[in-house]
Amino acid sequence: MSEANPQIGFININEIGSGESSTDGEIKEIKDELKVKGGETESKNNNHFTNSTKTDEQILLAATLVLDAKRGRNINFKTDDKHVRSYILYHKWYLRWALYAFIIIDLSLAFVEKPAVSFTAPYWATILIELVCLGFFIFRFCHAAYVEQSSSFWKDTKHIIVLCTIILMILDIICYIIWVNVAPDTNPVRWSRPLRPLFIVNFSDGKQVRRAFRNIRKTVPEILNVLILFFLSVLLFALLALKLFSKRNSLTYPNGDPYFKTYLDCIWDLYVLVTTANNPDVMMPAYDYNPWFAIFFVCYIIVCLYIFMSIVLAAIYNNYKKNLKNEIRISVFSKRRKLNRAFEILKDKVGDQYVVTQPTWNKLMSVVLEGKSQQQLDLLLHVLDNDGMNSIKKTQFVNLSDLLQVELTEVNDRRTFLEHKIPAIYNHRVSNALKWLIRTKAFRWFFDFLIFINAFFIAFDVDKSDWFFLVIFTIEIFLKVYTYGPKNFATRFWNIFDVLVIGAAVLASIIEIFIGASSEEFRTLDVLLVLRVMRLIKLFGSIPRFKVIIMTIVNIGPSILTYGGVVFVFYYFYAIIGMEVFGNKISFHGYNDTDLDPEKQTCGNPKLAKSNFYMFHYWFVLVTHKAARIYFFFFHLSCVVIVLNIFTAFILEAFILEYSLQKQPKLESAVEAKIKELGLGIGYTPNTTGRPTIDTIELVENEEVPEDPVPPPLKNQPDDPHDDSDTESLPDLSQEQGLRFHLKKRSRKKVEVLLHQMFEGEIEAEDEGEDFEQRPRRLTLENI
Amino acid sequence: MSEANPQIGFININEIGSGESSTDGEIKEIKDELKVKGGETESKNNNHFTNSTKTDEQILLAATLVLDAKRGRNINFKTDDKHVRSYILYHKWYLRWALYAFIIIDLSLAFVEKPAVSFTAPYWATILIELVCLGFFIFRFCHAAYVEQSSSFWKDTKHIIVLCTIILMILDIICYIIWVNVAPDTNPVRWSRPLRPLFIVNFSDGKQVRRAFRNIRKTVPEILNVLILFFLSVLLFALLALKLFSKRNSLTYPNGDPYFKTYLDCIWDLYVLVTTANNPDVMMPAYDYNPWFAIFFVCYIIVCLYIFMSIVLAAIYNNYKKNLKNEIRISVFSKRRKLNRAFEILKDKVGDQYVVTQPTWNKLMSVVLEGKSQQQLDLLLHVLDNDGMNSIKKTQFVNLSDLLQVELTEVNDRRTFLEHKIPAIYNHRVSNALKWLIRTKAFRWFFDFLIFINAFFIAFDVDKSDWFFLVIFTIEIFLKVYTYGPKNFATRFWNIFDVLVIGAAVLASIIEIFIGASSEEFRTLDVLLVLRVMRLIKLFGSIPRFKVIIMTIVNIGPSILTYGGVVFVFYYFYAIIGMEVFGNKISFHGYNDTDLDPEKQTCGNPKLAKSNFYMFHYWFVLVTHKAARIYFFFFHLSCVVIVLNIFTAFILEAFILEYSLQKQPKLESAVEAKIKELGLGIGYTPNTTGRPTIDTIELVENEEVPEDPVPPPLKNQPDDPHDDSDTESLPDLSQEQGLRFHLKKRSRKKVEVLLHQMFEGEIEAEDEGEDFEQRPRRLTLENI
Repeated sequence: MSEANPQIGFININEIGSGESSTDGEIKEIKDELKVKGGETESKNNNHFTNSTKTDEQILLAATLVLDAKRGRNINFKTDDKHVRSYILYHKWYLRWALYAFIIIDLSLAFVEKPAVSFTAPYWATILIELVCLGFFIFRFCHAAYVEQSSSFWKDTKHIIVLCTIILMILDIICYIIWVNVAPDTNPVRWSRPLRPLFIVNFSDGKQVRRAFRNIRKTVPEILNVLILFFLSVLLFALLALKLFSKRNSLTYPNGDPYFKTYLDCIWDLYVLVTTANNPDVMMPAYDYNPWFAIFFVCYIIVCLYIFMSIVLAAIYNNYKKNLKNEIRISVFSKRRKLNRAFEILKDKVGDQYVVTQPTWNKLMSVVLEGKSQQQLDLLLHVLDNDGMNSIKKTQFVNLSDLLQVELTEVNDRRTFLEHKIPAIYNHRVSNALKWLIRTKAFRWFFDFLIFINAFFIAFDVDKSDWFFLVIFTIEIFLKVYTYGPKNFATRFWNIFDVLVIGAAVLASIIEIFIGASSEEFRTLDVLLVLRVMRLIKLFGSIPRFKVIIMTIVNIGPSILTYGGVVFVFYYFYAIIGMEVFGNKISFHGYNDTDLDPEKQTCGNPKLAKSNFYMFHYWFVLVTHKAARIYFFFFHLSCVVIVLNIFTAFILEAFILEYSLQKQPKLESAVEAKIKELGLGIGYTPNTTGRPTIDTIELVENEEVPEDPVPPPLKNQPDDPHDDSDTESLPDLSQEQGLRFHLKKRSRKKVEVLLHQMFEGEIEAEDEGEDFEQRPRRLTLENI
Repeated sequence: MSEANPQIGFININEIGSGESSTDGEIKEIKDELKVKGGETESKNNNHFTNSTKTDEQILLAATLVLDAKRGRNINFKTDDKHVRSYILYHKWYLRWALYAFIIIDLSLAFVEKPAVSFTAPYWATILIELVCLGFFIFRFCHAAYVEQSSSFWKDTKHIIVLCTIILMILDIICYIIWVNVAPDTNPVRWSRPLRPLFIVNFSDGKQVRRAFRNIRKTVPEILNVLILFFLSVLLFALLALKLFSKRNSLTYPNGDPYFKTYLDCIWDLYVLVTTANNPDVMMPAYDYNPWFAIFFVCYIIVCLYIFMSIVLAAIYNNYKKNLKNEIRISVFSKRRKLNRAFEILKDKVGDQYVVTQPTWNKLMSVVLEGKSQQQLDLLLHVLDNDGMNSIKKTQFVNLSDLLQVELTEVNDRRTFLEHKIPAIYNHRVSNALKWLIRTKAFRWFFDFLIFINAFFIAFDVDKSDWFFLVIFTIEIFLKVYTYGPKNFATRFWNIFDVLVIGAAVLASIIEIFIGASSEEFRTLDVLLVLRVMRLIKLFGSIPRFKVIIMTIVNIGPSILTYGGVVFVFYYFYAIIGMEVFGNKISFHGYNDTDLDPEKQTCGNPKLAKSNFYMFHYWFVLVTHKAARIYFFFFHLSCVVIVLNIFTAFILEAFILEYSLQKQPKLESAVEAKIKELGLGIGYTPNTTGRPTIDTIELVENEEVPEDPVPPPLKNQPDDPHDDSDTESLPDLSQEQGLRFHLKKRSRKKVEVLLHQMFEGEIEAEDEGEDFEQRPRRLTLENI
């Protein structure tokens, strides 16, 4: 540790840390686990550093490549020392979060800009704020341009888009200032505002959202054929509708509107029918005229809604799968190339082989994982080095990023806070019996049942019981904290959820008592009581048949946020345009039936008189022009037809993958297999053969015998500690200590990680993916 | 031929013929094509029959098995001669069609039975008709029971269901007669009527519909988990909604209805929101009260509509794929077992091998393909017998059903009707130039362009042009008939379509002239003009990028009818129940706004006063009871959630399969490969190497030189005759004659046939599928 150069220590894993699993944690006591594992002499010898032949610059460059591989970053940065340091600075957490903050501020400006309803800031204030944001964007852009190879930088579409957007926005600001000062009465427009969400997508940190957009961009040309055919069939049906209905003068809508009178109206009404928004209103006049006309609408719905929309989904799904596979391929190969480059930098010739020697490894890891103990670095080397040479070959080095993904935790201090402080009372016979009771399944079931009862009472409005349940659930929390200790208790999502919900409910109830009675505004806090019922979800998650579904939903959670980002970009774009175009056309006065003021009845716009807008108030064409339909058409097409279908495709694929994996016992990376073999993992299910693994045997031998005798009930713990990590009770860690890798269960992994592992199983260890073309394969029933 | 026993000749392929390609056709002139193929001596020798060792009974049984394998029938019939003959009778076309007719009559009774509106027949009449139908069903049932092995017959669910349905219906009829005569004023109910559609599904002829139902039945348990979770989340959201909205007394619907006041109302309103039927009406009151409430509805829609409905689709799709593969496996193995049984019956020991000798083959085929010439039978033998032994081994025999699927046509008389009658005029220079002109692509393009112009004129109401286009299109038809000859002309779907549409339009226009002016009723005939525009579809089908989509739609056409059958069964069931429950609750009086008769304003039911039913007249809960929601809930669940999603899954799979096949050059059965190798096929694309196939060479050598010189323009035909079978112009058959197999292009095959071929490529020739369990396979990126 002393030899690690302090000046290069500034790459702190925590600072770069994204949402992925971080490998740090408070380390109090290091036990040399490796000694027990048999490699006693070697590991002792190697703990004394020999000199590495590599310079600090080389180590820093290699470490940056390794971290890029781990994080999946893909910037082709300049490799001299100055630029590498600048590149590391570029990825600092504070710069990234500052970027996010400025983007949010920039987007939020829409709330106080001119067509906004509630509060309008003076134009110079919003422009000033926007200029500050743009200033930061320019700085970030220049920083990226500085660190990246200029050949690749200027070929990258995202940089071009950022640059163009910034230029356009500055132009717009200049135009607007002139316009406002020259002709303030002509309703000046800030036309660049819909461009703002482009910053979300096109800065290199929005990787996931950009990938989703890339997917959409690649899918659109493929589904364009389907969409063209779809529109042609709508046109054809509109022609039929025109011929069928336009000449029949007695046919009108119930409110007297013309019914299929012009070709464009026919097209529009039929297009809206595909969204099902005007179904069956659009059919009723024709149906009442002659029931046989229903055949026309039924044919239309079958062809255009059921068949074509299904084919759109099929085309999107097919492309999504194809694009997903390609993305995975590209990212696996890119990761591999980075690690290979790092290896080329670090390698030394030992014997007839090129390897990374232990001193180099120690230097590298002290940069990559700053603050980790020497034991941890040795352990990592031991896992990678599967032939016991104390050096790492190229084929072993490519597994490094997988290894870094696995969380390394130290399992040693398993005693709870109270056990430390008042061991006499805590370990008393009564206390132990209580703890045993709380650890039983019956305890959990009892409270699950209470939640169920509570839900029932809420549903049928038995409000009196609220206090009883609040007290019961508060007691439950205290009992659990007592048994598991505050630290273990806080590691479970559902426990924190309980504390928050129950705490808030208790607080709300106390405030309610003091403020007195039921003010209507305050009712919202009742929702907190209802949120407790969400614990039932957890209950269902423990039933195997619901597991795959709930796991799918949990695993796709982060990706849903990605698609949320995509949808947000589209919505922001359309919302800004909509505000500019339709703003102030409608005003809302409440809809009290007895209020007969004609101004209010028409929502402030006389064009709405006699329309059914007043009753359902969501109608825009009447107040503007039929061209407004174009806006809604594009909105529907981009947001509903394309984005929502891609979202459906994503869920389809995620679900089918999860489902296939349930049937598939083996899928783990080489590193995970090695960790299991070495018995260094926690949190994975034991092998099903029943034979104790090396792991189990070794751990039992090394177990510290508790000073006080374990009470009999504790020995008879009803559940296997490995088995219920999905359920509420915490695994009893008393059998595990020392350094351990925290292996995630297969079902807990994200879809993308699984796909990575699946693809890595397919390719050769040396394959860096120079030829991307797909190998021809036989079409059989299995692989359709 | 003379030796074929005339008494067993009654299995006529035409009589058994289903919608599949039939192998017959008028045979005028047989040319001994085989002589040319090199096997001259053998085929000559073998044309003289040697005695077969097999009895007529054995041949008949084997032929029945072969036909069953070809048709995919799966009845385990008794194998003695008497029962085999009865089994053949069971499948006679007239008995099958009689069954269909009686089912249709039985279902149609609903139009004239009591709750029906327009015309009600006396009850004894409908019951009499129904008894006749039931009589036939009983006869058919007994016939099936007679021919099938009783062990398998009584284990078959479909027979049990038919029997139970018949018994229940007879019981119901008896009950009803008593009820009507004892207490006619108590509104007697024929409660068995919703059972009628069960006959569609459960007679053995409704194979496709039954398969779809089987798929649904197998899928439901798997998606039940998703549905349960979905309903739980609806319940949870309803609880939240209750807490959020029920205490706020100022919250009501615009018409004053209570807004989320009771738990059951909450559940119902939120469930309806999943169907999007009350979106955004259900949200608006809360949104107007406080815009932040929109978050609740957005969360609900995201979780329950977008995520859960996608997962329902994913679960259904996943099961659909699994079930489809299993069905294909089972049907391939079943076909193979039947053919193996047939082989076991027919085999003779020749040398050290068991084979089907040529005399046995001839006897078999004269039963299977009655009316075919000896040359045709020899040709079929020649195709199967790929080692030139003039006998068929077991591995060759299993290809027989594939071979029988390929249509065998005779290509010899290529001269058109007019060429026969007035060759001097028809082959005159002017005539030939005209024919050349008509065969050019330009001619086709010109008329396609005219159709496009016509569509444009129709859309923008230029009615005067109608006569012009009618005349032009009539001329087009006559020119085509002249060039291609009436017989060739009539083989194309689009030509027949043109004749029907144009003919009907001409007729309609003439009638219009005589009757005079535009009576409104008569306008419907204008639709005929619009139908012509559908020819544009054909235009798009010839553009490669649209081909896969149009081909998917065309190929899934028959299966859509299957799902139409399934939907019909459900709709009939719900419609009958709906008629009984809701009949006479609502009456319709037209909706003229000025008519203020209060009785009419409420549609004859005072409960509808002040509801918005009068305006949109589709509302039922108000007139009956909230329990009516149960009816609509089950209707939505079964028809929309399950059946429609299975339909979507079907289209997804069909589309993705078609798409994969576009990328996959080779997929043909062994028989097709052999036919191509022998050069006996027509209608397939030439191999892309450019090297002339054996086919081409042989055919050119054997070509009959036309008596009159071919005019130069004909020689310079612009398009390759093989290349445009998707387009309108007919292939010039002048280079092909004699017996030919009509090979379907890959893109023209049904999905199921393709799946069969794909699966057959996977299994061993000897595998009869005793072990159905799936072989474990590695999960890789390719096969997800």
